[in-house]
Amino acid sequence: MTKLRRSPERILLPRGFSFSALAAGIKVSGRPDLALADAGTRATAAALFTKNRVVAAPLQVGRASLQATGGKVRAVVINSGNANCATGADGHRGCEAVCREAANLLGVSAAEIFPSSTGIIGVRFPHEKVTAKLPELIVSRSSSQPAALAFARAILTTDTRAKIAAARFKAGASQVTLLGIAKGSGMIHPKLATMLVYLFTDVVASPRELRRILRATCDESLNSMSVDGDTSTNDTVLLLANGQSGCRVGDGRLKTKFAGSLLTVCQSLAEQIVTDGEGVQHVIRLVIEQSENRDEAMQVARAIAHSALVKTAWAGADPNWGRILAAVGNSGVNIDPSRVKIFIGTQKVCRNGVGCAFDEKRAHRALSQPVCDVRVQLGRGPSGVRFLTTDLTAEYVRINADYST
Amino acid sequence: MTKLRRSPERILLPRGFSFSALAAGIKVSGRPDLALADAGTRATAAALFTKNRVVAAPLQVGRASLQATGGKVRAVVINSGNANCATGADGHRGCEAVCREAANLLGVSAAEIFPSSTGIIGVRFPHEKVTAKLPELIVSRSSSQPAALAFARAILTTDTRAKIAAARFKAGASQVTLLGIAKGSGMIHPKLATMLVYLFTDVVASPRELRRILRATCDESLNSMSVDGDTSTNDTVLLLANGQSGCRVGDGRLKTKFAGSLLTVCQSLAEQIVTDGEGVQHVIRLVIEQSENRDEAMQVARAIAHSALVKTAWAGADPNWGRILAAVGNSGVNIDPSRVKIFIGTQKVCRNGVGCAFDEKRAHRALSQPVCDVRVQLGRGPSGVRFLTTDLTAEYVRINADYST
Repeated sequence: MTKLRRSPERILLPRGFSFSALAAGIKVSGRPDLALADAGTRATAAALFTKNRVVAAPLQVGRASLQATGGKVRAVVINSGNANCATGADGHRGCEAVCREAANLLGVSAAEIFPSSTGIIGVRFPHEKVTAKLPELIVSRSSSQPAALAFARAILTTDTRAKIAAARFKAGASQVTLLGIAKGSGMIHPKLATMLVYLFTDVVASPRELRRILRATCDESLNSMSVDGDTSTNDTVLLLANGQSGCRVGDGRLKTKFAGSLLTVCQSLAEQIVTDGEGVQHVIRLVIEQSENRDEAMQVARAIAHSALVKTAWAGADPNWGRILAAVGNSGVNIDPSRVKIFIGTQKVCRNGVGCAFDEKRAHRALSQPVCDVRVQLGRGPSGVRFLTTDLTAEYVRINADYST
Repeated sequence: MTKLRRSPERILLPRGFSFSALAAGIKVSGRPDLALADAGTRATAAALFTKNRVVAAPLQVGRASLQATGGKVRAVVINSGNANCATGADGHRGCEAVCREAANLLGVSAAEIFPSSTGIIGVRFPHEKVTAKLPELIVSRSSSQPAALAFARAILTTDTRAKIAAARFKAGASQVTLLGIAKGSGMIHPKLATMLVYLFTDVVASPRELRRILRATCDESLNSMSVDGDTSTNDTVLLLANGQSGCRVGDGRLKTKFAGSLLTVCQSLAEQIVTDGEGVQHVIRLVIEQSENRDEAMQVARAIAHSALVKTAWAGADPNWGRILAAVGNSGVNIDPSRVKIFIGTQKVCRNGVGCAFDEKRAHRALSQPVCDVRVQLGRGPSGVRFLTTDLTAEYVRINADYST
């Protein structure tokens, strides 16, 4: 069994960024729930938002601000404990009030403050709790590893661990640093929500360059994973480049290096999110091969990753390839079952749509590991995808069904 | 809380049909696993098969036979304990051997025998066990309620109850009888599969008439339910009309009566299947209203019914409407969240995409009942659907993850 890279939790600070966090009283637990990342200057920004038609207020505000500024962001203000979603006009006004106040304190325009929220849906957003704490939040910001770690912890909800990945590479006499911080237990928790990913770098880049790199990177990482198939109303990925390294991403080799580093960071964050998924016992690395194109490989991967029957079999480390084959047949892709091959771990368990003799105990052992590869060959073409997913355990149900009147 | 109609388990025998069942040694438990329904004559038939691209051998054989005969069936031979799926050419030949042998014994052509299988996938189909028992099976058939009940029990796999519904109505001096028998725990069990539905009637009808009525009926019943969103490789619905009542379905009022009875029977069977779903504690009757058309209402219903987060909330009787709203937003239908209303039981819990004040305890009590209505209004048009689904419980995971090496 190959292992997922361990979370390095190594914090490398890109030049010019500062961080802070504190408890504003939004979380009932009293834990830190308000965080700030300040780029120190008008940074270039690119963002990806949830595809859910139900979109939380901060995403609406953030998207509009990015359009208004042409992709410029000075600072990010994030609260946990309340998603500010399904909160109507009041929630929208509350979000704007937070941005306005932070902007006043930093001496910039409100559109340069990028807001994020994660937590309970459909409960009034207590914006006055946030604005009351903004002066303290801004004053206490610092360019230090403890401050970045405090930021990473304050944005968590049901996560059990902070999610951090970083990369640094040389560029001539200078160096470029990239720091990624994420939250998400891979799904929406009872009344709590969301994957949030923040990528901070000191490279010099135009909004257009950033958008292109970010989109391509996410397709290979954060968009190629699933715990339970649900998509939050608040999912956000934000990439900020403040240019403080002086290195331009437009320059040939540097672009390749930067894209590679961004992919490494995003893949590590994706792995950290999936591994920390609610009730997850086994991470499955799906490899879909021999598809006509990438889209249909994704369609097959999602059909497998969303099948309750397949996921519960994985929970029991059951090498039941018939369920995987049935999920492939159900994917909507026009597959020919008699060309499909399935591998569990390193063993072929199904050849041309029919079971083959295999060591069932060995397959059971492979699926009993923390991480196992499941490979499906469609016999249709040269394309494919890699996709991270998980089992579906009784513990997941317990966490998500737990309700006290 | 309205109640689902209780399973009547009332057996009304359509004229001319006979039934039998016995243990052929396919099930390890030694329980009955082979069943016969004989129409007594060349009956008119209509069938619907799984939409899964992976299709079991008996479905391939049955579909070809219906084409060859122009929709005529003399008898149905069903085995449980083995799905005869992903069994390759050997499985196909085994299925044909069973049909040939049954046809010889009944003195008809092999294409007039309709085969079905349900059980483990990917294991060799032991056709010799079936053919060895066919003489006894055929000799022992009888037109009696105990024989029909034995048939209903022999086709079960993980079901806990036989699923039977019947209807009878007068037509002039004569009467028409309709008997429906089904199996299915609403999902594919570990290595066991399938919803099978057999509808026997003595009405006179052409294959074309039957097909039309069956398709329309299933859209409103058996195709409007889901336990876990998985589609078996063996799903089959078969309607047989042997004409022994002498009443023609083509005649205006009789057609309406027959279609109504068929819908009642199929809806009852759908309710019995969902209620008997693995680990099911709560049945949810989804009502989607104000859609532009039926298709998009179905799309919304399926998105809600397939959301692990919504289903686990139901397991805890949690009136968490935010998850329902997020699932609606995720459905792919171009909804405007600010026009969406959600009701749990009789209470409105979300108006225009924002939560309203409601009695949370009352909503919790409503969801704690065996059956609860959840209604979603999309504010888009005059159409809608009703859709039966269930919660997702830790017991479901336990049943499906249970694996012993």
